[in-house]
Amino acid sequence: MSSNHTHAPGHTIHRHCHHHGWDNSNAPVLTIAPGETVEFETVDSSGGQLGPGSVLDDLLRLDFGKVNPVTGPVHIDGAEPGDALKVTLVSFRPSGWGWTANIPGFGLLADQFTEAALHIWKYDPASMAPALYGPGGRVPLKPFTGTIGLAPAEPGLHSVVPPRRVGGNLDVRDLCAGTELYLPVEVAGALFSVGDTHAAQGDGEVCGTAIESPMDVTLKFELVKGADLAFPRFRTRGPVTRHLDAEGYEVTTGVGPDLMEGARAAVSGMIDLLTARHGMSAVEAYMLCSVCGDLRVSEIVDMPNWVVSFYFPRVVLS
Amino acid sequence: MSSNHTHAPGHTIHRHCHHHGWDNSNAPVLTIAPGETVEFETVDSSGGQLGPGSVLDDLLRLDFGKVNPVTGPVHIDGAEPGDALKVTLVSFRPSGWGWTANIPGFGLLADQFTEAALHIWKYDPASMAPALYGPGGRVPLKPFTGTIGLAPAEPGLHSVVPPRRVGGNLDVRDLCAGTELYLPVEVAGALFSVGDTHAAQGDGEVCGTAIESPMDVTLKFELVKGADLAFPRFRTRGPVTRHLDAEGYEVTTGVGPDLMEGARAAVSGMIDLLTARHGMSAVEAYMLCSVCGDLRVSEIVDMPNWVVSFYFPRVVLS
Repeated sequence: MSSNHTHAPGHTIHRHCHHHGWDNSNAPVLTIAPGETVEFETVDSSGGQLGPGSVLDDLLRLDFGKVNPVTGPVHIDGAEPGDALKVTLVSFRPSGWGWTANIPGFGLLADQFTEAALHIWKYDPASMAPALYGPGGRVPLKPFTGTIGLAPAEPGLHSVVPPRRVGGNLDVRDLCAGTELYLPVEVAGALFSVGDTHAAQGDGEVCGTAIESPMDVTLKFELVKGADLAFPRFRTRGPVTRHLDAEGYEVTTGVGPDLMEGARAAVSGMIDLLTARHGMSAVEAYMLCSVCGDLRVSEIVDMPNWVVSFYFPRVVLS
Repeated sequence: MSSNHTHAPGHTIHRHCHHHGWDNSNAPVLTIAPGETVEFETVDSSGGQLGPGSVLDDLLRLDFGKVNPVTGPVHIDGAEPGDALKVTLVSFRPSGWGWTANIPGFGLLADQFTEAALHIWKYDPASMAPALYGPGGRVPLKPFTGTIGLAPAEPGLHSVVPPRRVGGNLDVRDLCAGTELYLPVEVAGALFSVGDTHAAQGDGEVCGTAIESPMDVTLKFELVKGADLAFPRFRTRGPVTRHLDAEGYEVTTGVGPDLMEGARAAVSGMIDLLTARHGMSAVEAYMLCSVCGDLRVSEIVDMPNWVVSFYFPRVVLS
């Protein structure tokens, strides 16, 4: 979002330079030195199969072999296993459209939501004003990279769906402009790729999709030698929820000995509340929860029962 | 914190009117009508065994049969199973001291932190300015009720440690002044009790204790007939983290197929970061994480690996 002339990209990688899945034998599309800045064009997570005019039938015809392409890989000179690749998310150039779907078999409540559903979003990429949700609501936007990571050490092709210690499909909604991300390097050159950009998402991405929206992303790369990270870590430049917390939250909980069941109960409770109060259908509420509500672990120590909470920002429906 | 003369309490329950554990045969210490406001004096979660002058030996001598007393129970006229008791947290009168401990056998990383540790906090109950942490740091305060709940339907005495669908030891750090909590009623009269007040805590309460601090609490009670809640829910009056988010967050993650292991990895990563950067011991970092860091579920849908993140507010150590 922010433009930063001290980080003007020295390179652009076009959207046709993408790959499906992670494989450390993929040839780099670019080699850079630490300190360089690169602009990436990305394809949306449907792999270009959905567009601003798509309807439910287009979702039903999705070829899952083409989903979640990532642009890259970039070879960073001098990167070796045990280092960390520091990625500064410099800026985003959003496209102005996006999609959110319930895809059968995918999502926290997949057993309850077995029918496909699709919502197409339009937003103003200049103002980035909250995006209107047809069934009701205005969703504050904060673009971020859903999939951002490195090639794993293990040879062969690995699905893009699960994130790993080298990153990948992390879907952490605070990997936005200004954030500094540190990824554990497992192969020489790191082999960095990025894609699956989102215009907004809550913690959890509970229905399985965010506001999936293609964007150009500018990133700066640095190396931390011998960082020896167990997992990715990051630093945010400032607050992370002030764009949506002004009117507080409605919060539902799940209490019990299993965090997954607690999460499912909390989200189910919020869907019940939204459908009863705002007249939207259950799947509409589920998709809205995914793009703006946050799954938090309130307590994880009061044996044997934990409390998982789902925070829905009231500003969205006020 | 806020005084509110429209909610001046009509009753005060003194701190000697407390009980240990939940039992629906406990006799009410007060009966009220819906709409009434009550002030509760609470005992800290050590049951008065620790004080502002306590040292580690006092923690080692703790009688666990006396921990976590709750003040009550209050019978609310007309409350019946299936109703929700709406509890508005009107105001807190903090005491100015508190304690945080690592208690062997208790906490998210109990296997790694086997030695007892105790930190005594002093804070200004008038200004509620951030509290100095001896090993380093200033922790913003936000008082809340750790244990707040109703008697369960099941007869007999039930441990106070685990929270249940009727509430109890929820340890949700946003049950603070202004919040409206809805608890599922399981017995006639609801039989409400409260205690275990905290001056600050992060989401997760990862070391097992918060800033445990006795306070007087004023609460207003209303009934929602036939609400039929599955679990507690609540509404916050406004933002929930602005007191500590101004400088952003350091965030560590855990990536894998088990939410509990992800949470443990994320917290371990933060302890490593804090000890390396700020020179505190591991157990000092662990206790600091518990009182101000937040455990969030970043994604719970990218099968089979989930991302749990631990957010440490940078303002605490800046």
